[in-house]
Amino acid sequence: MARDQRRDRRADQPSQARRAPRRRNRHDGAEDARVRGERGRRAERDLRRDRHLHHPGLPLPRGRWALDQFSPAALDAVHAHRRLHRPGARQGGVRPRDRAALSLLFLRRRVPLLAEPAVSFPFAIDATDGAARTGALTTSRGVIRTPAFMPVGTAGGVKGLSVAQVKSTGADIMLANTYHLMLRPGAERVARLGGLHAFSSWDGPIITDSGGYQVMSLAKLRTLSETGVVFRSHIDGAAYELTPERAVEIQADLLGVDIIMQLDECPALPAPRAEVETAMERSLRWAVRCKRAFGQRQTQNLFAIVQGGVDESLRRRSAEALVAEGFDGYAVGGLAVGEPQAEMLRTLDATVPLLPRERPRYLMGVGKPIDLVEAVARGIDMFDCVIPTRSGRHGQAWSDAGPINLKNARYAEDRAPLDEGLDCPASRDYSKAFLHHLVKSEELFAQVALSWHNLAYYQRLMQRMREAIAARAFGDFAAAFRERWARAAD
Amino acid sequence: MARDQRRDRRADQPSQARRAPRRRNRHDGAEDARVRGERGRRAERDLRRDRHLHHPGLPLPRGRWALDQFSPAALDAVHAHRRLHRPGARQGGVRPRDRAALSLLFLRRRVPLLAEPAVSFPFAIDATDGAARTGALTTSRGVIRTPAFMPVGTAGGVKGLSVAQVKSTGADIMLANTYHLMLRPGAERVARLGGLHAFSSWDGPIITDSGGYQVMSLAKLRTLSETGVVFRSHIDGAAYELTPERAVEIQADLLGVDIIMQLDECPALPAPRAEVETAMERSLRWAVRCKRAFGQRQTQNLFAIVQGGVDESLRRRSAEALVAEGFDGYAVGGLAVGEPQAEMLRTLDATVPLLPRERPRYLMGVGKPIDLVEAVARGIDMFDCVIPTRSGRHGQAWSDAGPINLKNARYAEDRAPLDEGLDCPASRDYSKAFLHHLVKSEELFAQVALSWHNLAYYQRLMQRMREAIAARAFGDFAAAFRERWARAAD
Repeated sequence: MARDQRRDRRADQPSQARRAPRRRNRHDGAEDARVRGERGRRAERDLRRDRHLHHPGLPLPRGRWALDQFSPAALDAVHAHRRLHRPGARQGGVRPRDRAALSLLFLRRRVPLLAEPAVSFPFAIDATDGAARTGALTTSRGVIRTPAFMPVGTAGGVKGLSVAQVKSTGADIMLANTYHLMLRPGAERVARLGGLHAFSSWDGPIITDSGGYQVMSLAKLRTLSETGVVFRSHIDGAAYELTPERAVEIQADLLGVDIIMQLDECPALPAPRAEVETAMERSLRWAVRCKRAFGQRQTQNLFAIVQGGVDESLRRRSAEALVAEGFDGYAVGGLAVGEPQAEMLRTLDATVPLLPRERPRYLMGVGKPIDLVEAVARGIDMFDCVIPTRSGRHGQAWSDAGPINLKNARYAEDRAPLDEGLDCPASRDYSKAFLHHLVKSEELFAQVALSWHNLAYYQRLMQRMREAIAARAFGDFAAAFRERWARAAD
Repeated sequence: MARDQRRDRRADQPSQARRAPRRRNRHDGAEDARVRGERGRRAERDLRRDRHLHHPGLPLPRGRWALDQFSPAALDAVHAHRRLHRPGARQGGVRPRDRAALSLLFLRRRVPLLAEPAVSFPFAIDATDGAARTGALTTSRGVIRTPAFMPVGTAGGVKGLSVAQVKSTGADIMLANTYHLMLRPGAERVARLGGLHAFSSWDGPIITDSGGYQVMSLAKLRTLSETGVVFRSHIDGAAYELTPERAVEIQADLLGVDIIMQLDECPALPAPRAEVETAMERSLRWAVRCKRAFGQRQTQNLFAIVQGGVDESLRRRSAEALVAEGFDGYAVGGLAVGEPQAEMLRTLDATVPLLPRERPRYLMGVGKPIDLVEAVARGIDMFDCVIPTRSGRHGQAWSDAGPINLKNARYAEDRAPLDEGLDCPASRDYSKAFLHHLVKSEELFAQVALSWHNLAYYQRLMQRMREAIAARAFGDFAAAFRERWARAAD
């Protein structure tokens, strides 16, 4: 369901790329800080941890020996590490399967006091070409090659496809939605079932949107206050409260995902400046509360979301305040929500240079292939979008020349596959004529095959961009891509 | 859509297994006939072929050298072998893919005059246990292990699944529907696209139902006469005529499938005896016309359909007349159309012994796992049914203990997979809790995963039966299966 795509107006304001003054913060100066003040930082961290450990009401025995009896998240995610774990008769444990063994980092997260000093979320930029960059984000569940496209698994799985099918397209990470999982099956239920990785069988990295966006766009009844949002479920009308603290608890503790998004408020565009400013300022305050709630988690990561609509001064205010606070990564939110592509790109031109070069940059809910190319050209590293799967369910297949509408009778006897250069059965093994027939017959496999092809096409596009940047040839790649796209749109 | 499953009444008439007198016919005495009269038979076949070859209007050069210029079915299925093939600029040919090379038998079919004497459709019975038997049917596109369950791909593909997914369940052959393909995309269009194998990307054996059943059950306006059926498409109201000759032309020449079913008339039960008898007698006459239209095709096979409802004397009349005529295999049709299971089994008890032991026996449109076990116990070799895929789309997973309704809240926190003994990701890699969540969320993958699991379960059941028969332990297997099934139904 992620962010919707509507662009029916045009704007031609010139882009205004500005470089923000570098600031020292948690991420920017990690190496220096470690060298200069490792002792002091460690002491402070241990202090904070102790505070966390000596949670009021915890009947803890003295001494360290009892730590290995703390309840692990897999059994009791709500109170993980906060009470002693005494295995009960009905506790299921982890089922054996043909997967890799549990990683050391995964196990380490279960006993945070024993963890080494933070080396979490290394982001290595291997090459740049203009503003575009390629590299790799390392999480405890695997490496994410950037620029990365993250397929959307709203309810915990990508619509229509198995985990293996999604992985076969080249996806390193899946995006799920806090809002949907919170309502159904419920975050506490996912926690009881071992967290979102065990529940969904996706053992790679998972990122979750915070739910703020869907609360704004989907919930019928909602009351917004400084505290958070109270809303009624679109499924059964039950009341829910989502605060910054609850958003972190759900994502980090109950779902147990690898990248957590702050709770934000995201107005649909166009909107009055005052409204955009109010939402941006509140999102900033929520970001600080999310950071406080997130604390010193070692192998999970918290991303802030820059808001401010298409107003450059509001974006600057948002970006500078968030960077000063210090997060593991920075998302650009509140775009692709109604504004023309040119305004989105102008906003990116103004915003991306304000974000620290060393941290990943994530453009939320975007977009069509041409949008991905333009945003990578401006320094974006991560994307999610429902377009490939949603349009696949509606009979559209994507290509460098835009979407192919397979309902069209011109494909009724077209023996060529969608793209025999893609290593995806849906792209390579079926003729357009057969896919046209399946779409016309409203066959289930039409939706599956086109979603599958589209994800494979998107992942291949990201790979081509990574290769072009590594070869310092991204400018030519982007120019050729733009030209073919524009020709097809004529 | 194959034959529907409705059984809501019970009957307890005793089964009456009777052995029919052996008859000599084309199949029963193939070896003897070949030895005794090979010369005469070859002469007669050549004569028929010449008649076929010297089709009025064919501008043929004299002599055999031109035969390799005859249009192959892949380019011109309607007039394959009837006119000279001069490749045009726009003719696509066969695309290269990562498949096995074209088989010699496949190529041989393209030039029937050069074919060797008929050794088509060898059916080897490897073991028997009581009436149950296990063996293998050999077609030019691969071997079908029997007893076999044939997944239903109504419109040319199994709903929701790729060819690779269906094959991964262990399926050797797919069933498609003449009626549906004739209406959309049209049999001539499939022929222009190279036949059903090329169109669907299913390179193994394909069987097609003749369309008679769907004309009876689906078409709104139809006029039935001795000639055939005229009906209006349920899609666009266009008028179609289906005669025995047209049914063979569509299946054998246009779709180019491996096993062709005769056109039959199949009344829904219960029906007055006179009505069932009229339909059975007409089906007999249509069988003879189908056989004549089918002629001497070397690598395709024609099955007759025994009709007669649940009336044993009508079944006997139908079976004996069809066996006397001689077909490559014999189907029992007109069952699982409203009668109780006990009546179906009683009818099988009376009918199967009338069919030649050496030929495959196919029970059409059946059924639930328990029905398959009961029918195999009575000597049936082949099945098709929509139950696994249709019930999968509705949230049901099959097991030895009957269907598991994943909508049920009892599975909301069930961490166990559907069946970790099955080599199918849908059966093994996802918890019932996750599948329950997908079903409740109306996620597309719920339908896909449950269809996939169900086909894997059905194929595994067939394999277990084949193994039990080979080990002469089928009686024990069936008894244990019946007991578990009955216990679950309580």
